[in-house]
Amino acid sequence: MTTIVMKFGGTSVATPEKILGVAKRAIREKEQGKRVVIVVSAMGKTTDALLGLASDISQEPPKREMDMLLATGEQVTISLLAMAFKKLGHDALSFTGWQAGIETESVPRNARIETIHTKRLEDALDSGLFCVVAGFQGVDRSGNITTLGRGGSDTTAVALAAALKAEKCEIYTDVDGVYTSDPRYVTGARKLEQISYDEMLELANLGAGVLHPRAVEFAKNNLVPLSVRASYSDEPGTTIQEVITVEKNLIVRGVAFEPDIARITVSYSKPFNGSLANIFTTLAQHLIDVDIIVQSISDEFPPSVSFSIKEDSLEEAKRVLSEARGHIGFTAMDVETGLAKVSIVGSGMVSNPGVAARMFDILRGQDVPVKMVSTSEIKISVVVPSDTMKRSANALHDAYGLTPATVQ
Amino acid sequence: MTTIVMKFGGTSVATPEKILGVAKRAIREKEQGKRVVIVVSAMGKTTDALLGLASDISQEPPKREMDMLLATGEQVTISLLAMAFKKLGHDALSFTGWQAGIETESVPRNARIETIHTKRLEDALDSGLFCVVAGFQGVDRSGNITTLGRGGSDTTAVALAAALKAEKCEIYTDVDGVYTSDPRYVTGARKLEQISYDEMLELANLGAGVLHPRAVEFAKNNLVPLSVRASYSDEPGTTIQEVITVEKNLIVRGVAFEPDIARITVSYSKPFNGSLANIFTTLAQHLIDVDIIVQSISDEFPPSVSFSIKEDSLEEAKRVLSEARGHIGFTAMDVETGLAKVSIVGSGMVSNPGVAARMFDILRGQDVPVKMVSTSEIKISVVVPSDTMKRSANALHDAYGLTPATVQ
Repeated sequence: MTTIVMKFGGTSVATPEKILGVAKRAIREKEQGKRVVIVVSAMGKTTDALLGLASDISQEPPKREMDMLLATGEQVTISLLAMAFKKLGHDALSFTGWQAGIETESVPRNARIETIHTKRLEDALDSGLFCVVAGFQGVDRSGNITTLGRGGSDTTAVALAAALKAEKCEIYTDVDGVYTSDPRYVTGARKLEQISYDEMLELANLGAGVLHPRAVEFAKNNLVPLSVRASYSDEPGTTIQEVITVEKNLIVRGVAFEPDIARITVSYSKPFNGSLANIFTTLAQHLIDVDIIVQSISDEFPPSVSFSIKEDSLEEAKRVLSEARGHIGFTAMDVETGLAKVSIVGSGMVSNPGVAARMFDILRGQDVPVKMVSTSEIKISVVVPSDTMKRSANALHDAYGLTPATVQ
Repeated sequence: MTTIVMKFGGTSVATPEKILGVAKRAIREKEQGKRVVIVVSAMGKTTDALLGLASDISQEPPKREMDMLLATGEQVTISLLAMAFKKLGHDALSFTGWQAGIETESVPRNARIETIHTKRLEDALDSGLFCVVAGFQGVDRSGNITTLGRGGSDTTAVALAAALKAEKCEIYTDVDGVYTSDPRYVTGARKLEQISYDEMLELANLGAGVLHPRAVEFAKNNLVPLSVRASYSDEPGTTIQEVITVEKNLIVRGVAFEPDIARITVSYSKPFNGSLANIFTTLAQHLIDVDIIVQSISDEFPPSVSFSIKEDSLEEAKRVLSEARGHIGFTAMDVETGLAKVSIVGSGMVSNPGVAARMFDILRGQDVPVKMVSTSEIKISVVVPSDTMKRSANALHDAYGLTPATVQ
């Protein structure tokens, strides 16, 4: 008998009616002869309400206690969903993270799952029960409740699917799958039937937003077949797996983009290797995420390094770098704002030389100046002026054959 | 170093400000060199909100899942209180029921505590931490979250005090102690400095309401010194302990009363012992609480039994008894409503003959007809017409010397 893990996010369980709907959906799967595990998040805005309570007490609450507080959100949902199954004539058992045997590191607010002791879940599934598991939470070896950080419920679902050797893990959400690009900006954007883990990982990291990168990474490492589909319809969604069986001919699988990027360029008087480490250590200590890094050293110009960050981190980045100026040893700092990042992703790139050249050619055809470039085996990102982001994304989407013929 | 357990109910932790106030109060105890455990209930109306959510899903939710749901209420409070300690510069750890080692029977919604594994709490106390424990909840041997039923947080506090061999257990509430009677009805009612477990048990069972009978029973069985005091003032409150050191001369320690009582009288055609068991088994199966039971069998009249119940259970009691009429075997059922129960409580009664006679004499002096009587070693209860309840209580309070001379 095969096992399936279904995960429903906060908006899909926001009201008692929606919770009953989730139960009905899971019952349909069971009636097809499957063992069903359901992973749920906190209802709607519950987490925000809990964060509000904490901030009324303290601006810097202890992280362990934040985990204790936030874990109640999913606990409410699992109990209500188990009640919903009973109401519909089916037996279910709810499980908190610790009851489901989800053991994590002792890192409050951002713990990684170490082991899952599946005995209780296996026993319940063997007895024919629906298992309803609280996402986002676990327990460390000392018995402290931990939470898994952003995207934690996705990670719970994938980890359970791996531990229970499930046939697949379905992520139900408020979009109906993974798209070639964001339909709000790109006219020809369309839903993908399939995508590889690596491509999804790049898209997830680039802010496509439907799935958390940690969950995708976990699925890839354990070869868990994932799918992303709508909680409001029966459409099949997008399947994420190691080997793609269709659309092989596509070099580029998607176009992602992100506005509100700033670039900082720091110059030194002489090529002093320590400076580079000092800059990024300083930024990391202040939890400022750096994305693209470009260093250029030549004999003609003083050495410099450029890097991109989110615009809302810019003021703090400038402040902490200026404060550490003597320590870092730089001579000048330039800042450029009003930038955006546009990326093309596809595992076909690695075997197709000239993809980058073609990308730059397309952008030149659109009069888009390229400010920074970053490449990986399956991704090329460029930083461009914000006002060219939409134009660039549409041009790339069309040129790489992602737009259906009828739209283009 | 002595340990103290402090318990704060829902109204005492209803807002972040009140939670900070609870922390301040506990810090004062620690500064006097004590190890401090704080037991808390769910904030204000949280439990009602959770019950509302459940009833939106199902009118008969599974009890195990109700426990899962309700237990989140206290978990929110403990995390916030631990944050409040940190905010005030002190270290604390919060503990859910299972983390505090509170092991219960597998009886959802009404579990009794079986064992407390105190190691984690002892370790935290030894490290100089405040221990903040969720009241009302525990875990059974299979790892299911259970709740302790009404008054559960009081029971948690007393059980922890016993397990940790605490110097005392303080119940902070919205009244400043145990009174000789209800001041809203009895002019001369005053706060008692001390009261024995047995007296408190009778008063608690009679609806004095400040402490749950199960908690008092637990305290009595383990000789835990209890006190009831106000969360809003520094007054010492009332101490509840085995041996009373003052006010020895008082035969009666308190006058309790309860309105909205109904009496049902059932007559049989012949003295058939099975009928008696059948009546009360039928009522118990429908969870109808029966209080006073009086049976009279004589040669002159047909045998009958009278019993008192709360008026709001009357319709259901009449219905289930009528339905079971053939099975029970009764000939007639009479009902009287508009009654109240008035009781005098005091451990001095057992060694003072004639207390009952005096009580009836006092009531006769007030023209109060006595409908039913029930006695224990330290309590006499009478059922009287509702409109004589207040008059009866005041007369008894005065006559037994409970009213201070200046008031009387």
